[in-house]
Amino acid sequence: MTEPNGTSNSTDNTSTARSSESNPADDEFTVTPYAVDGTVDYAKLLERFGADPLTDDQIDRFPDQPMLRRRTFYAGRDADRYLEAVESDEPHAIVTGRGPSGPMHLGHVLPLYLAKRFQQATGATVYVPLSDDEKFLAKEQSFESIGAYTRENLRDILAVGFDPERTRIVVDTADSDVIYPIAVRLAKHLTPATVDAVYGQQDTVGLQFYPAVQATHLLLPQLVAGRQPTLVPVAVDQDPHVRVCRDVAAKDALPVEKPGALLGRFLPSLDGPGKMSSSGDAPSIELTADPETVAETIRTHAYTGGRATLEEHREHGGDPAVDVPFQYLRFFFENDDERLERIAADYRSGDLLSGELKEIAIDRITGFLTAHQQRRSKLGSLEEALEPYRLTEQERRRALERAGVPSGLES
Amino acid sequence: MTEPNGTSNSTDNTSTARSSESNPADDEFTVTPYAVDGTVDYAKLLERFGADPLTDDQIDRFPDQPMLRRRTFYAGRDADRYLEAVESDEPHAIVTGRGPSGPMHLGHVLPLYLAKRFQQATGATVYVPLSDDEKFLAKEQSFESIGAYTRENLRDILAVGFDPERTRIVVDTADSDVIYPIAVRLAKHLTPATVDAVYGQQDTVGLQFYPAVQATHLLLPQLVAGRQPTLVPVAVDQDPHVRVCRDVAAKDALPVEKPGALLGRFLPSLDGPGKMSSSGDAPSIELTADPETVAETIRTHAYTGGRATLEEHREHGGDPAVDVPFQYLRFFFENDDERLERIAADYRSGDLLSGELKEIAIDRITGFLTAHQQRRSKLGSLEEALEPYRLTEQERRRALERAGVPSGLES
Repeated sequence: MTEPNGTSNSTDNTSTARSSESNPADDEFTVTPYAVDGTVDYAKLLERFGADPLTDDQIDRFPDQPMLRRRTFYAGRDADRYLEAVESDEPHAIVTGRGPSGPMHLGHVLPLYLAKRFQQATGATVYVPLSDDEKFLAKEQSFESIGAYTRENLRDILAVGFDPERTRIVVDTADSDVIYPIAVRLAKHLTPATVDAVYGQQDTVGLQFYPAVQATHLLLPQLVAGRQPTLVPVAVDQDPHVRVCRDVAAKDALPVEKPGALLGRFLPSLDGPGKMSSSGDAPSIELTADPETVAETIRTHAYTGGRATLEEHREHGGDPAVDVPFQYLRFFFENDDERLERIAADYRSGDLLSGELKEIAIDRITGFLTAHQQRRSKLGSLEEALEPYRLTEQERRRALERAGVPSGLES
Repeated sequence: MTEPNGTSNSTDNTSTARSSESNPADDEFTVTPYAVDGTVDYAKLLERFGADPLTDDQIDRFPDQPMLRRRTFYAGRDADRYLEAVESDEPHAIVTGRGPSGPMHLGHVLPLYLAKRFQQATGATVYVPLSDDEKFLAKEQSFESIGAYTRENLRDILAVGFDPERTRIVVDTADSDVIYPIAVRLAKHLTPATVDAVYGQQDTVGLQFYPAVQATHLLLPQLVAGRQPTLVPVAVDQDPHVRVCRDVAAKDALPVEKPGALLGRFLPSLDGPGKMSSSGDAPSIELTADPETVAETIRTHAYTGGRATLEEHREHGGDPAVDVPFQYLRFFFENDDERLERIAADYRSGDLLSGELKEIAIDRITGFLTAHQQRRSKLGSLEEALEPYRLTEQERRRALERAGVPSGLES
């Protein structure tokens, strides 16, 4: 950890300047419990939304996972209800979706791995809805294009390795036989004024209707398998969806509990704080990227917390709180707290250079992606691979029955 | 036709007064081409909607049917396009739907019998969509209640006796696997402002979205079986649905023609001019009514064009133009023009009394209903009876393919 930062480049220098501006008090950073981010005031968001920060006790009771332990997921709604079901061995569910308008990148898959961990640790049922309808409506893309991304995204979701007995993957257009009638029922309680207030004015009646579809996603585990606590791990900006669903569920006489939420911070964009985006300027690391591309992308584009010169860095140390490679390790890719603390300490002391820190992140991320890609490459036919994860006929019928929707035309 | 009006009652007297008020010039009435109605200005409606009155030439070219011959369907959009396809033996389709929020009555079934006539005469494909979603959203009824009416309505639709080879019956919730994805595609072109302008402000996002579903209904024959002229026979107040669909179809690159329309007058309510309603105060004749109920209802409630006293009637004659029993005969239940003209002449001359005219209508209507009910009683299991009229898997796939919607999850 004492080698000079051979790959330090202009991006690093630029980022250092930005780092100093947005985080004048570097030494306030600790790995846990709270990360600092210059652009989002996560505490204020909670106040605005009326959600609760997770307590130490709650964190202890959840399955151990770096995103919870380090409070990337830092707040919740009705988290205790979920934990009580876990502890008394009662059914409980996770819903974590995907909008298939492009290739999936690291930021998209982390909640899925969280859900997988919950499933393995406590037997949680996991629902993964894909909102191809919403993406078609919201984007300048054809249905053909959205369909192609849907199929690619499904491969990535399947590669996570969920238990097919306890996981259902739903695609809005392909499963509209069950999604649409339930959404209609919920839409009876959803006014244009509410949608406008929560999401802003929508351009089309399709997007106005979509929150009813989203609410359907969040209630689906309970409609299929009966009343149970359902937790929705989402980036904090997705919380409005959860609140709309809770409101609608409260107005309806459906036999369901209001879904709870786990609210998360954004995985920072490679070139600095903010939400990782696959459509913005910052390059994203796609799940199908090969190791060379990952290494090259991180070496070239990752925003670091290093100093402008080697001498300065050795003397004053770097700032892990704004260093994106470090943040990637902290979010997910370095599970060992002691090792992570040591890396942070070495970086702060100046013993570890930005380029060296990048190489550690490259190593962990490519290791993760290689395993993911190996599972992905073994899937074979998508149709066959997906089949055990699709709703069965009986499950569809039960969901419609619980929603009180005429499910068939039997007399 | 010279017997005194033994069943004349207070309703007749009341109705006579109203008749004189709204139709001072009784003698302007003729059986064809135009019926007069005090409450609806049908010509003005056409101007407002921008549709064209049917020409004599067009009427001649349509299959002979009393509702066309007597111009109950009196206007159209793109009627020539449809007639050209008929005459060159090319595929052509009719779409005529039903909103299942109550039992079906005479007014509801007449467009279906028109469609059946077209099917028998020229081989038209007939699509009958049931908008249980819209009725659930628009009415103070549960989905269970709408579902029960849907099943009853389906029996009446099946009793019409369509050719299963050329007829498809679609229920929005039960066929949402094909309806919803196509509606989403169309909804991308439908703004909240357009829906507000055409339908007025809607209470829920469900009703805001519904016009996209309705547009899907009207395009479905072409999406299933390829581009072809499609005619939608509807009461003139339903024309906005057709116009919205035409606008949306024009904005989209779908491989379809804009659907045309046949616009009709309302079957008058039993107690006087206006639209027959199953939810208003006027009693309606349900398709399942037994002959005694039909007779009793018409005798007690039918608004007539008779005079206040027998002597006055014999001297001045009655007014068939406002006489509801006569209008029922004219709309549909007396197919023979000469016989209808003779009834009108006898009524105008005073030879035929209101009670006698009622008995003629009762005879024709009960004859029609008995045949309908006999077919209905032979259906057996609804599921089995409906099966040959449902979209096949191949038809569903083709419709989604033509709409460019990812129809499956095959890679």
